[in-house]
Amino acid sequence: MKADKPQNIAKEARITLVGAGPGDAELITLKGIKALQTADVVLYDALVNEEMMDFAPANAVKVYVGKRSGDHSHSQESINKLMVDYALNYGHVVRLKGGDPFVFGRGYEELDHAALHNIPATVIPGISSSIAVPGLQHIPVTHRGLSESFWVVTGTTTDGKISDDLYKAAKTNATIVVLMGVHKLAQITKIFKTEGKHALPVAVIQNGSTENEKVAIGAIDTIVEIVEEKQITSPAIIIIGEVVSLHPLYQPIKEFYDVAKG
Amino acid sequence: MKADKPQNIAKEARITLVGAGPGDAELITLKGIKALQTADVVLYDALVNEEMMDFAPANAVKVYVGKRSGDHSHSQESINKLMVDYALNYGHVVRLKGGDPFVFGRGYEELDHAALHNIPATVIPGISSSIAVPGLQHIPVTHRGLSESFWVVTGTTTDGKISDDLYKAAKTNATIVVLMGVHKLAQITKIFKTEGKHALPVAVIQNGSTENEKVAIGAIDTIVEIVEEKQITSPAIIIIGEVVSLHPLYQPIKEFYDVAKG
Repeated sequence: MKADKPQNIAKEARITLVGAGPGDAELITLKGIKALQTADVVLYDALVNEEMMDFAPANAVKVYVGKRSGDHSHSQESINKLMVDYALNYGHVVRLKGGDPFVFGRGYEELDHAALHNIPATVIPGISSSIAVPGLQHIPVTHRGLSESFWVVTGTTTDGKISDDLYKAAKTNATIVVLMGVHKLAQITKIFKTEGKHALPVAVIQNGSTENEKVAIGAIDTIVEIVEEKQITSPAIIIIGEVVSLHPLYQPIKEFYDVAKG
Repeated sequence: MKADKPQNIAKEARITLVGAGPGDAELITLKGIKALQTADVVLYDALVNEEMMDFAPANAVKVYVGKRSGDHSHSQESINKLMVDYALNYGHVVRLKGGDPFVFGRGYEELDHAALHNIPATVIPGISSSIAVPGLQHIPVTHRGLSESFWVVTGTTTDGKISDDLYKAAKTNATIVVLMGVHKLAQITKIFKTEGKHALPVAVIQNGSTENEKVAIGAIDTIVEIVEEKQITSPAIIIIGEVVSLHPLYQPIKEFYDVAKG
């Protein structure tokens, strides 16, 4: 049996959306691994750790469908189409997506497309970087006395503007997590400055959970410079809120602001 | 070797906080399973699926430290103390917590207590019910055109009041996820009514991801009654926002409101 040929035995078409987690290959769920073990085809994204392909059978078809800036060869429409075509021709398609399928993952659009073609589809949640990446740095998204909630916002809206939600978020005490927003960090910090939150702690973490992880810890007034110094670029997440003050690298910053306050 | 006796070989004290996910025993990560496989002691919470104990060695000590209403035998302080005592006497303690350790899990307090006693501690993220429980019902917390963000709020603050964040959340277009709030559902819907959001879709899901799952789908004006009819109680999560309209059970409700609007 060749990897690029369907089996002769007719298999039932089905699709499983699986969340691959933030990057570390061991941060996939047991259920996700079991789905991969029965995959005839795996369609995987740019942010998925390729080591996870080892969970799938050696003869499963593995197709990279990552969307990267400047590479529009795989639009969402073409992914939807590929997913359905492979299911009808090969059987079980595992659609392996970075993080959780529903956190800015367009997972529902894929479910919807499967339903349009009467192909049964199920979902296996993944570890979302929005919670796990700060957590692995021992930054809790919630903590008694510091934060009663966390608000996860995209930095990249459909129309390219900053989400209105971020302007509202800056007025609250919630921990704010911004995904896909590091290229707009200067604009984002400006929103918080307008609210007078110059000293609010901020963390920016690139490649969280992997060996290439980079961390910048600062405050609204200083984080842009620190991120430039550390040459942090996307994919990175931004965490804004008092909970960031619990990170060990924040201690000298705290002392600076305490002195400044007199 | 008895389960209730420490080994004679001195083991290095260490603590691993592991997120057990929303309930389904297969929604733990591979990394979490590997931690359990090397556990000398497992301290586990009320919402942890006990099937996960099978991942730990048969001779590991397994201690239930769940906090349930009316049962204050295990305060956070006593859990912290147990965790450290077991680590010093037995070696590797896995602290297995429902969901993710940092989503209203008091995980940081446990890390902090370990640090106070110079015991190395690491964190393994878990699948948070805040994202996964709606997701398993095919309700995406974000969806193009419906929601650019999601805001996760506790329904049970330290002082027993509704969090101020929920009043602010009701003024936004974010998907709102309320954890531990089903006993305050009437009060919570009142906040949204004050904002004129009577027809905003709401889902309440009890025991998400398990075979005892119960789902109520309605709108701000009707959800309290539906939850009573379906006898849904805690542990349950509340999802408020336009994304709930994507659930199949919402279709007849949509038709009702469309007729009402004329």
